[in-house]
Amino acid sequence: MPHPDSRLPRGVSDCLQTSSHALFGLEQIVRKVTQSWGFQQIVPPALEFEDVLAQGMGEELRRRSFRFDDWQTGRLLAIPPDITPQIARIAATRLKNLPMPYRLSYSGRVLRHTELQTGQSREIMQAGVELIGLDSPEADAEMIAMAVEIMQAAKLDDFKIALGQTAFCRGIFESSGLGEQALSELREAISRKDATYVADILQRNPVSEASAREIMLLPRLFGDIDLIEHAETVVQNKVSRQALANIKEVLAILELHGVCDYLTIDLGDIRGLGYHTGITFEGFVPGNGENLFSGGRYDGLMACFGLPAPATGFTFNLLNMLQAVEQQKGLQKPYRDFMLFNQAADRSHALKIGRSLRQLGYSVARDIIKRNLEASFEYARQNSIKYLLVITDDGGIADKTLKLIEIADRSEKLLSQAELWQHFPLQH
Amino acid sequence: MPHPDSRLPRGVSDCLQTSSHALFGLEQIVRKVTQSWGFQQIVPPALEFEDVLAQGMGEELRRRSFRFDDWQTGRLLAIPPDITPQIARIAATRLKNLPMPYRLSYSGRVLRHTELQTGQSREIMQAGVELIGLDSPEADAEMIAMAVEIMQAAKLDDFKIALGQTAFCRGIFESSGLGEQALSELREAISRKDATYVADILQRNPVSEASAREIMLLPRLFGDIDLIEHAETVVQNKVSRQALANIKEVLAILELHGVCDYLTIDLGDIRGLGYHTGITFEGFVPGNGENLFSGGRYDGLMACFGLPAPATGFTFNLLNMLQAVEQQKGLQKPYRDFMLFNQAADRSHALKIGRSLRQLGYSVARDIIKRNLEASFEYARQNSIKYLLVITDDGGIADKTLKLIEIADRSEKLLSQAELWQHFPLQH
Repeated sequence: MPHPDSRLPRGVSDCLQTSSHALFGLEQIVRKVTQSWGFQQIVPPALEFEDVLAQGMGEELRRRSFRFDDWQTGRLLAIPPDITPQIARIAATRLKNLPMPYRLSYSGRVLRHTELQTGQSREIMQAGVELIGLDSPEADAEMIAMAVEIMQAAKLDDFKIALGQTAFCRGIFESSGLGEQALSELREAISRKDATYVADILQRNPVSEASAREIMLLPRLFGDIDLIEHAETVVQNKVSRQALANIKEVLAILELHGVCDYLTIDLGDIRGLGYHTGITFEGFVPGNGENLFSGGRYDGLMACFGLPAPATGFTFNLLNMLQAVEQQKGLQKPYRDFMLFNQAADRSHALKIGRSLRQLGYSVARDIIKRNLEASFEYARQNSIKYLLVITDDGGIADKTLKLIEIADRSEKLLSQAELWQHFPLQH
Repeated sequence: MPHPDSRLPRGVSDCLQTSSHALFGLEQIVRKVTQSWGFQQIVPPALEFEDVLAQGMGEELRRRSFRFDDWQTGRLLAIPPDITPQIARIAATRLKNLPMPYRLSYSGRVLRHTELQTGQSREIMQAGVELIGLDSPEADAEMIAMAVEIMQAAKLDDFKIALGQTAFCRGIFESSGLGEQALSELREAISRKDATYVADILQRNPVSEASAREIMLLPRLFGDIDLIEHAETVVQNKVSRQALANIKEVLAILELHGVCDYLTIDLGDIRGLGYHTGITFEGFVPGNGENLFSGGRYDGLMACFGLPAPATGFTFNLLNMLQAVEQQKGLQKPYRDFMLFNQAADRSHALKIGRSLRQLGYSVARDIIKRNLEASFEYARQNSIKYLLVITDDGGIADKTLKLIEIADRSEKLLSQAELWQHFPLQH
């Protein structure tokens, strides 16, 4: 008896043929674009010592990682909930003798515990890059330009990138003189873009007039990039002004990259992963609240693993990307080129034709089951196979021992072998 | 302070650039070959309910899986220690309305607990296929022919495939009338090919003369495929004789596939994963005791998930394969085509050249750090970059604003933009 409840745990899913095909295509696109920008793949392990990994993770992420006792050492092991800290560890310990910058890429799966009812994924398929050793605005711009190129290569043209700068908020908060309790409330209110709630907090926690003006800006500073000009007229504290200057430098380079049409601003953005220190960005498509990619500068993380260095990077959430492709364009069912149906007494002819077609770049399945031609045709139709190729012994008419049946319209053609190769030349 | 012990747990490793590049190449080869045989990729999740997965796993594998309590349901979760039971689950529950056979492929990582000191990997990178719904010898032969094609495509020509048939041993054991205790000892002795130990067991546990002859064969039946003829002259029980007939049928088809030179026989093979029921095979290279690939028939597994169907498949161990490539051929360091070094006042020219080169198929990193040309040359050399392309404002001599430096021999050439495109045409 099969188990009565063979459903999957929430937050994970089976990817069947069509989705897997599209998913693999997206992974390939990320790989190809990042490779063309000079990034090189590394593969971190799916298992680490928890205390080592924790050096580069915030409390929240640490709490959500899958942990267990090592049979061998009794030490705590963890399945990485995020790949960036692993790349930082590897760069700091294994690559440190090479001159910087390091341009590194990765793709893999991470696991995170989630609370019931949040509907969040527990398994996240990530593909991304880290650019380690550069603190210039050009490096930040490179990340965003690459992310745009990936979206374009995936034909996901309808998207927006929300640009942030973590120091902008930090400058306003630090110069306000508010205590942790009030700041925590403010973060909550700002992340909800709730200006009334912000005003209410300020009423209960009075600050200077300049600070109040700055804070009241935060829930409103998202949307068009022109808002930066507006922010500059209001914000007085030095840290936030530097943050704005930094964004403008990056924007000037993004202008040269020709990607500014995709940009919006979110200066009230308070990011989740905790290690970001400067420019941050998230990519969204219409009708989906979860980002497709996110990234930003993290100048403190490398030092956690013993090699202080500025760094920036991004990661694509491949399943969110897949969903966007499905919504915007629909997924194409992957097809196979041929199914061979052998009516000849001797198998070797069919095997030889199959091998030759494969060498020419076609996908060829053999119908090994002894079914009749009608049933084989039906199998081919249901399995998105383009051609049924029947191999016979009957070479009476000019060696035309092959019958090519096109599944789509059921048209038939008798062919000699030479004619088959003319019809189906070498594919790239 | 970085953590004093940032080593990795045993049994996992970081794959740096060169290994990752080769590893990805191997994964691509498996994917390309299996796709050309009509197999379609599916992606099972990295997390399952333990009791669901356990329906398709032996005790040993179940014991070695990483398990956790689900925060959401309190049920036990497991990280899959093997992908085949997952594919069986998906085929039986999600694909059951499609006509068989199913030709499915996968690649992914599994985790297994290991005992201290065994030196075994805890993380195994697998890529493989399952052919579900066919019980004919042609299906078994297809698996072996594909595995050979993958090895050849990876240029690993020096390998052997040990062919087994689980029913051969089973027939001899069942007809011997021996109890479980003696059989367990026998399995141990036979897996060590220890004929003296086998004889000793038989002395303590007398069986019929015919049975004794059959059992004494087992530790010796490995090596040349001609041993099958020898086995036929000795073995009397029906189950084992059918197993031999089955192997001979498969061999006849493998002859047509032209792969028999790679074959050896191991009829005393007692396989580890427990679900195999007929033809099994394992691929080895000289000087490495661990297999690179293994597979075989498992006609009982699908029924565990509610859809009885014969099946066969194989899986490649990509890290073992990588090791073999490294030993037999050495790994090639992945290179990048260009590093751009901008000496012009304006960045836009360099950005444009970079974009054009990438569109032509070249990998291009920019040197954003403000270092001198000598340091950039040194960086390029250490990072396996082929060309340093210097972009200047100086277009005095026939618009030759570009200087192309070949890193290998440090030769230099002044070029105009038009000449650059002549030198570096579109790549495939």
